Amino acid sequence: MTTTVITHIGSLVTNDPAVGEGLLGLVEDAALVLDGDRVAWAGPAAQAPAADRRVDAGGRAVLPGFVDSHSHLVFAGDRTAEFDARMSGQPYRAGGIRTTVAATRAATDAELSANVARYLREALRQGTTTFETKSGYGLTVEDEARALRIAAEHTDEVTYLGAHIVSPDFADDPAAYVDLVTGAMLDACAPHARWVDVFCEKGAFDGDQARAILTAGKAKGLLPRIHANQLSYGPGVQLAVELDAASADHCTHLTDADVDALASGNTVATLLPGAEFSTRAQWPDARRLLDAGVTVALSTDCNPGSSFTSSVPFCIALAVRDMGMTPDEAVWSATAGGAAALRRTDVGRLSAGARADLAFLDAPSPVHLAYRPGVPLVSEVWRAGVRVA
Amino acid sequence: MTTTVITHIGSLVTNDPAVGEGLLGLVEDAALVLDGDRVAWAGPAAQAPAADRRVDAGGRAVLPGFVDSHSHLVFAGDRTAEFDARMSGQPYRAGGIRTTVAATRAATDAELSANVARYLREALRQGTTTFETKSGYGLTVEDEARALRIAAEHTDEVTYLGAHIVSPDFADDPAAYVDLVTGAMLDACAPHARWVDVFCEKGAFDGDQARAILTAGKAKGLLPRIHANQLSYGPGVQLAVELDAASADHCTHLTDADVDALASGNTVATLLPGAEFSTRAQWPDARRLLDAGVTVALSTDCNPGSSFTSSVPFCIALAVRDMGMTPDEAVWSATAGGAAALRRTDVGRLSAGARADLAFLDAPSPVHLAYRPGVPLVSEVWRAGVRVA
Ligand SMILES: [Zn+2]
Ligand SMILES: [Zn+2]
Repeated sequence: MTTTVITHIGSLVTNDPAVGEGLLGLVEDAALVLDGDRVAWAGPAAQAPAADRRVDAGGRAVLPGFVDSHSHLVFAGDRTAEFDARMSGQPYRAGGIRTTVAATRAATDAELSANVARYLREALRQGTTTFETKSGYGLTVEDEARALRIAAEHTDEVTYLGAHIVSPDFADDPAAYVDLVTGAMLDACAPHARWVDVFCEKGAFDGDQARAILTAGKAKGLLPRIHANQLSYGPGVQLAVELDAASADHCTHLTDADVDALASGNTVATLLPGAEFSTRAQWPDARRLLDAGVTVALSTDCNPGSSFTSSVPFCIALAVRDMGMTPDEAVWSATAGGAAALRRTDVGRLSAGARADLAFLDAPSPVHLAYRPGVPLVSEVWRAGVRVA
Repeated sequence: MTTTVITHIGSLVTNDPAVGEGLLGLVEDAALVLDGDRVAWAGPAAQAPAADRRVDAGGRAVLPGFVDSHSHLVFAGDRTAEFDARMSGQPYRAGGIRTTVAATRAATDAELSANVARYLREALRQGTTTFETKSGYGLTVEDEARALRIAAEHTDEVTYLGAHIVSPDFADDPAAYVDLVTGAMLDACAPHARWVDVFCEKGAFDGDQARAILTAGKAKGLLPRIHANQLSYGPGVQLAVELDAASADHCTHLTDADVDALASGNTVATLLPGAEFSTRAQWPDARRLLDAGVTVALSTDCNPGSSFTSSVPFCIALAVRDMGMTPDEAVWSATAGGAAALRRTDVGRLSAGARADLAFLDAPSPVHLAYRPGVPLVSEVWRAGVRVA
């Protein structure tokens, strides 16, 4: 295996307190040694061991590739007209998720796969090296299983979200749809997924339905995560902790009991500011969660309806501006936090043993991700030791 | 001169109501014919005249390159620590503009020029093809003239802003600084600039001082523009209209009389949402201005203190989310609006006679600039008929 030393790193985010300073395990004037697809060593450039080849980072900051633990990329069509109307204050009979369900069902496998590839490439260029993505626009046994098969061509972090909404085909009998989601659809989907998810919200699935869906998924070997407390208060967050879900996602409307539950359990709170941005909704209060000791992740929620951004840097800037996070906390949440939300220890950090997933910034420090909002600062991306963008 | 036809444009923004539909003069399935550095023809692809060479836009949207009519790029250093502290809620004795003044004075000509070039290149990659930039971090006769000379190496739209703040060297005698700005400094600066500007605000320059500075500039052949009503109500906006300034910039705190003055005059209201974003300040009310019939421009205010973004698409997304603009209005303001704020008729539109400044989007419509916030959608940029990014 060839070893590589990357020197002249202006500021290196290791997320490892044993290696560097502060929350980000920051090392100034740093070097990183890679051995094949892994990090072999991280620390001050002056102490770097020798390696077969040498790369000069030119003073740029380097951080772990972003871990985007929440996206919905297996879809067809987009919802430009719906967005335009919403933002222009016009009344509009939006088809909402159903519009995307119809377009997704009508698309070929090749079209769906090309779409996933396109958005993952777009995310990769912006520094995201680990992606989770979900089904949820098929809502039939065949269409959900197909979505997961296609997602699995592109990433290991695949989530079964047959319980995105009650399928329009079951509008008169939601209980029968829950039976399908926990029965034949689960049987068809479980082989292609790592995770099971449910949208626990008024108008989608209530607490009892969500418990049934996640419990059935666990019985089939899937690990639970949940869309919880996005649009209103509800049972989702406490259910997540009860079932030891890896993550409760959104967490916009939280009672003190919800925050206490998160603080006492092993469930990460994943915040998705792109959704609040694009729907003009209330911001989640990251400060409250952090002050209570909750582990917070930041992700894009990339989907064509409520948050059509693939940009983790954009989410970092919003989290700092509007959710009470410091720049360091936001960067940690978008890297180590995302890894925790996927129960991964090999990504989201840059110290010995981690996968060599690197984002180089056209900037000397990671603070610039919030300080320079909207600017595409990620100038180079490596995944598993290979330069990919 | 070689002619070029660009075909298969998904959606073409001409900003010319004689050519296309609606505010943006939109043509679907369009073509554009260029003759050297100019647009020769714009319209439906099916009607496009022949040309020497042919370029396929692949269904992408094409719009006029952005016209960023307000930036402060002749500076050295940055203010990462100040930003980090402000966003982290820490008390911090920020040096503010003075920090940048000290770093700028200490920099060499080559350093300053390289910095301007760097940020203009960054802006160009994001679709900005016309840039205004200002002095204002020198605040001595020599340093202001030097800043303008350097700016003029990079753009025609150069603004003399000796009146950014009262120079710290004149803290005890602001009147003497106004005499300098309207006297020896103006004499040294006027040959290098097109515009004269003043920061009319409590703690900077009052209405009488601003009038004296802009009037002196006009007498030397410079055209006035003004930083007005950013942090508080004040006389700046009405002064701008009185002096027929091309633009009143910021316009965050406006009385009804201010709005009426703008609606009755020829002064553009230039809104700079990057500043409100990065200082957590109140948003300017674009809707109120538009409803009153005021011409609105959108620009970045790119500077290392209050708005370190060079991204016009980011400003468009903020204007739609938080300032009451429709996606079409925001796109118009960032192209045709910026041109109006610089009293230019050759840029900000794509119809016969315009400069061939083009931004291609990795998207089928300009709405995606707001619909896909933070995503670097500009995939190709042409200036004066030449592909530059
Ligand atoms: Zn989601
Ligand atoms: Zn300014």
